[in-house]
Amino acid sequence: MTLFQIFDILGIFAFAISGSLVAMRKRMDPFGVFIIAFATSVGGGTLRDLLIGAQPVFWMKNTDVIFLIITAYFIAIFFRKKLKYLNKSLFLFDTIGLGLYTIMGTEIGLSNNFHPIIIVAIATMSASFGGVIRDILCNEIPVIFRKEIYATACVLGSITFLILHHLDFNETIIYISTSSIIITVRLLAVKFHWSLPTFYSKI
Amino acid sequence: MTLFQIFDILGIFAFAISGSLVAMRKRMDPFGVFIIAFATSVGGGTLRDLLIGAQPVFWMKNTDVIFLIITAYFIAIFFRKKLKYLNKSLFLFDTIGLGLYTIMGTEIGLSNNFHPIIIVAIATMSASFGGVIRDILCNEIPVIFRKEIYATACVLGSITFLILHHLDFNETIIYISTSSIIITVRLLAVKFHWSLPTFYSKI
Amino acid sequence: MTLFQIFDILGIFAFAISGSLVAMRKRMDPFGVFIIAFATSVGGGTLRDLLIGAQPVFWMKNTDVIFLIITAYFIAIFFRKKLKYLNKSLFLFDTIGLGLYTIMGTEIGLSNNFHPIIIVAIATMSASFGGVIRDILCNEIPVIFRKEIYATACVLGSITFLILHHLDFNETIIYISTSSIIITVRLLAVKFHWSLPTFYSKI
Repeated sequence: MTLFQIFDILGIFAFAISGSLVAMRKRMDPFGVFIIAFATSVGGGTLRDLLIGAQPVFWMKNTDVIFLIITAYFIAIFFRKKLKYLNKSLFLFDTIGLGLYTIMGTEIGLSNNFHPIIIVAIATMSASFGGVIRDILCNEIPVIFRKEIYATACVLGSITFLILHHLDFNETIIYISTSSIIITVRLLAVKFHWSLPTFYSKI
Repeated sequence: MTLFQIFDILGIFAFAISGSLVAMRKRMDPFGVFIIAFATSVGGGTLRDLLIGAQPVFWMKNTDVIFLIITAYFIAIFFRKKLKYLNKSLFLFDTIGLGLYTIMGTEIGLSNNFHPIIIVAIATMSASFGGVIRDILCNEIPVIFRKEIYATACVLGSITFLILHHLDFNETIIYISTSSIIITVRLLAVKFHWSLPTFYSKI
Repeated sequence: MTLFQIFDILGIFAFAISGSLVAMRKRMDPFGVFIIAFATSVGGGTLRDLLIGAQPVFWMKNTDVIFLIITAYFIAIFFRKKLKYLNKSLFLFDTIGLGLYTIMGTEIGLSNNFHPIIIVAIATMSASFGGVIRDILCNEIPVIFRKEIYATACVLGSITFLILHHLDFNETIIYISTSSIIITVRLLAVKFHWSLPTFYSKI
């Protein structure tokens, strides 16, 4: 099993947990929770596959993805009472998913020989789209438009990946550096309420 | 004309009626009503074709679909005053569409040799997606997240289809059994307020 | 550079400006404004490419599109204080984008040999979809469902294009006539509060 496959599995798993948690917070019925878990988990990768024309999309060719989501779903349900700090768990799993999906998006963009700026766009879209669908379906303001730096962390991570790749670092170092940067930027952004500078005058 | 084609036509027709009725209840203008009828009718099949990579999507290759939707649209407008029991008519057409689209989705999944669990997922998504888009565009809570069993009926129907298919029953029996199960489950669910058991403690 | 390419560039540019303006009116942060500019600008063409199966979608094959959007974004930000009449500017750029995208959609539909009714549908969807995504992401009622004639202008423009094309007029005449009709219909519709006749009785 390659490092890519391990990160792939962990990303799908983390987003499935994050989707289940948001849906349970909204007190959806068991099927609704599963739909949200599924949409959050595969949403970004499905958009990526549609845009580059890699159909049938990834989860149709590999049933492991479905069983992985089902497992994450039951774990989220089973441990829901232990998850006293639901918001913290949710934030953690969402951030991990964000980091791992950015790596997968960048990797797939590279293997398709797209221009670097397109690769960063694909990576950012595939990392953040799952969370956006989740929030739209749950009727929350999409996480991407809330104050803290979110998609910006993916952009920074994807650029880091491309630079290290260009400098011929090996895969393990690239993957670990990229995910560390994304997770760190996101954690610090939320902790210290970082946000992008605004160009509106104070009212 | 095969039974598949007849069910296909009826499914498109039923969803076009259901879309027109929801849009008229929202008092949209004639063009808005047509857009909603179109999106409800072709939405599920378009998603299905995009995900499996069958492009151009079905309604681009077959103009009959467009004329069928136009016909349904005018029928809905013409009979709108007879439709005193608008909610009941809407529910009926939506349920018929749900049953027929599940059959088509399962059939197409089978002919692409997907794994059974993927086939059930495709059938359920293509059957319920039209109604979800309709409700999002009309600013209603998507039907799939309301209390009564909805997508669950598609899952049961699609599994029934696959079992009967595996047991070598003929197409007519499979189609009629599948649609009967979906329509019956949905009717009973609404009549008796069935819903899935919940795992939240009472507040 | 062909007339088609010039119109293509202008359409992308106009929609990127219109997206930036709506996002700034919502006081989004700089990255949010860019996402909205991007989604508005490429949304319609991306949907078109997905439906007809022309992947990777257009902006992945041509990085000029990205740099064009970035330029439009900075122009919108830079001139935001001069844009006292933000609503008027927004309306103008949205209308120009609508006209140009209708032409591109019709042209691409023709080159794929679709049936005329399908071509009109593709042109209308690709012209109006960018504005619809923009409005959904910004939590406004989609422009297509507001009172004034919107998608109807695209339908009229696309039909005009097809008739002139059938009568063998040259490209320049077709492009200028089509965009003039769309822009004029839309301007007059807003000025005189034109809307489609309704079939609901007064309440």
